[in-house]
Amino acid sequence: MPIGTFEVKQKSSECAARSGKLVTAHGSITTPVFMPVGTQATVKTVSSEELRLVGSQIILSNAYHLYLRPGMEIMEAAGGLHKFMSWDKPILTDSGGFQIFSLATLRRINSEGVEFRSHIDGSKHFFTPEKAVEVQRKIGSDIMMCFDECTPYPCTHDYADRSMKLSLEWALRCKKAFMEGSPLYGHEQLLFAIVQGSVFRDLRRESAERTVEIDFPGYAIGGLSVGEPKEEILSALDVVTPLLPESKPRYAMGIGMPEDLWECVERGVDMFDCVMPTRNGRNGQAFTSRGKVNIKNAEYLRDFGPLDPECGCPTCKGYSRAYLNHLFRAQEILVLRLLTLHNLYFMIKLADTIRTSIESDSFLKAKKEFLNKYGV
Amino acid sequence: MPIGTFEVKQKSSECAARSGKLVTAHGSITTPVFMPVGTQATVKTVSSEELRLVGSQIILSNAYHLYLRPGMEIMEAAGGLHKFMSWDKPILTDSGGFQIFSLATLRRINSEGVEFRSHIDGSKHFFTPEKAVEVQRKIGSDIMMCFDECTPYPCTHDYADRSMKLSLEWALRCKKAFMEGSPLYGHEQLLFAIVQGSVFRDLRRESAERTVEIDFPGYAIGGLSVGEPKEEILSALDVVTPLLPESKPRYAMGIGMPEDLWECVERGVDMFDCVMPTRNGRNGQAFTSRGKVNIKNAEYLRDFGPLDPECGCPTCKGYSRAYLNHLFRAQEILVLRLLTLHNLYFMIKLADTIRTSIESDSFLKAKKEFLNKYGV
Repeated sequence: MPIGTFEVKQKSSECAARSGKLVTAHGSITTPVFMPVGTQATVKTVSSEELRLVGSQIILSNAYHLYLRPGMEIMEAAGGLHKFMSWDKPILTDSGGFQIFSLATLRRINSEGVEFRSHIDGSKHFFTPEKAVEVQRKIGSDIMMCFDECTPYPCTHDYADRSMKLSLEWALRCKKAFMEGSPLYGHEQLLFAIVQGSVFRDLRRESAERTVEIDFPGYAIGGLSVGEPKEEILSALDVVTPLLPESKPRYAMGIGMPEDLWECVERGVDMFDCVMPTRNGRNGQAFTSRGKVNIKNAEYLRDFGPLDPECGCPTCKGYSRAYLNHLFRAQEILVLRLLTLHNLYFMIKLADTIRTSIESDSFLKAKKEFLNKYGV
Repeated sequence: MPIGTFEVKQKSSECAARSGKLVTAHGSITTPVFMPVGTQATVKTVSSEELRLVGSQIILSNAYHLYLRPGMEIMEAAGGLHKFMSWDKPILTDSGGFQIFSLATLRRINSEGVEFRSHIDGSKHFFTPEKAVEVQRKIGSDIMMCFDECTPYPCTHDYADRSMKLSLEWALRCKKAFMEGSPLYGHEQLLFAIVQGSVFRDLRRESAERTVEIDFPGYAIGGLSVGEPKEEILSALDVVTPLLPESKPRYAMGIGMPEDLWECVERGVDMFDCVMPTRNGRNGQAFTSRGKVNIKNAEYLRDFGPLDPECGCPTCKGYSRAYLNHLFRAQEILVLRLLTLHNLYFMIKLADTIRTSIESDSFLKAKKEFLNKYGV
């Protein structure tokens, strides 16, 4: 099937949940899918082999970070990110929009683009929609994202309106730049758009409708998880997903925790990324079938069972809670990886569980069972 | 063959080098052998599976560190270190002598033992030869070491004499305590002794002869690599190894760098441990067939070849110098592991190369070839 094809395999009879398959130049992805975050050309602590081992179908990386370091000259010389980091499955890149607004300093935005200073060395840069496409072309990601302004929260309706319209303009320019160029490494890339509009239902609606008019092979819902209450996230999805074409994948950017996946899939979302599984892992928090475990707690000093008795990940197969607790106390960095691997495996298996429940049309029952046991 | 058996397989016709096999409760070790250092129940950055992957036959751990953290109560509850860290091959433990003299504070030594304060929390402890054996029994190492005073360098002949004689007394007491007790986890342990005497040939001789009289299944040469010039190390070996029984394994504690292995094997040493391959790796230094590479250097920014084109380690198979350089610059801890794995693989393969050269009786030729290429 042509690259960019999205096949809806099964739809829930109870809600908007669906399972599907997205075709990319580096293979097909079954959805719902959780994408581990590899900000700087590595999912922190984890090797590419280990990403394969825990079942990652696709990872996310960041145009902003890679643009600053190692830089596009080295990225091009390497032949793109797949070769650079030794990962031959799909990669999605964020355009840099979110990072410029959350990490960079001294931002000056106008309709042309954004001037900002690097969070690493203070050097000055100017990003435009065209530049974001060019950078992502040099990275060679399978899925690039449109350059947008990630609307801050809270903000006024007026600000959100102008911001959303700017992102729409930029989406048009991204598509134009995308259509006019061609891939650098011989594999086809896709360009997804991002729906904005903050917590305002009318703006979310307008953003969704007008973005769809431009026509993209996939749509993200952006500006989520930026500090707003969780109900606002779900409410935004309630407005947006019904307006998105059923035949295109939908991606909730920056979502989510285990419980969030269920809520979002129920509303018709197919793709997710979130730093929490990896970041929380590095802080000692493991996701398990019976809820969260903070492995640093003294109660695990003498607990010789695995993190999660129902888990088949390399960490649970090899190591006890007592050992992981010891590694944390002894400040041995091996433990950062062991918890990261466990949490990634947990999220990836969770997406599998959700998909299976859709395919047997028992999504709501499976959701209830999971949440009861997980204790949310 | 009974546990503790050491078979000399092949002797060089040109020098004291020999290959052999040592039988332990967790399997046999072929010698010469390099033992990765797993101070705190982990070889820093590396999982037990990865130790197997790079070919580790045996690892070293430290009674001092494990005694302080996680402590012997947890170690016993875990069923010993093998189970605790998920490693089913041989383990050798250092008795704590070296660490008490290099890490602990406020040491007070008398003929009974050493009082010291923990480098972690300042708590007060008292180690005796009997205590060191008890701790190592609780750890369950395949090879425990006698408790000794690691003679500092430089020191007077008089100090070295008294220190060496104290270590001899303690070796006797260790052996007695060892013989009177029994293993805790159903597998047989071995007790090796340590020859001291600093840089004084007469003292090294006396220490070797009197330690051999007590009779142990293996002998270490201790007090090496504590700041003395390298010639002093080799000179100590020149004195000591001819006095050690040919039918017992010989272990040069804390040695060495790649070039050191050749020098020591030439003088009849069989076993090695050293933190340099792992520590230097974490600092960005890789050992390669053509010498050392500091991967942080700018010259590797655009070098898309592997660390060592002749290497078959997971790092060299998967990643380029440019990528490793990027990870260091981006402060991604994955790189600490990738370099550690490479250096461990290098040392383990080096020991294999040395063994093979002995078995084809071409040790000196192989040594010359290695050192020429390595550039020492």
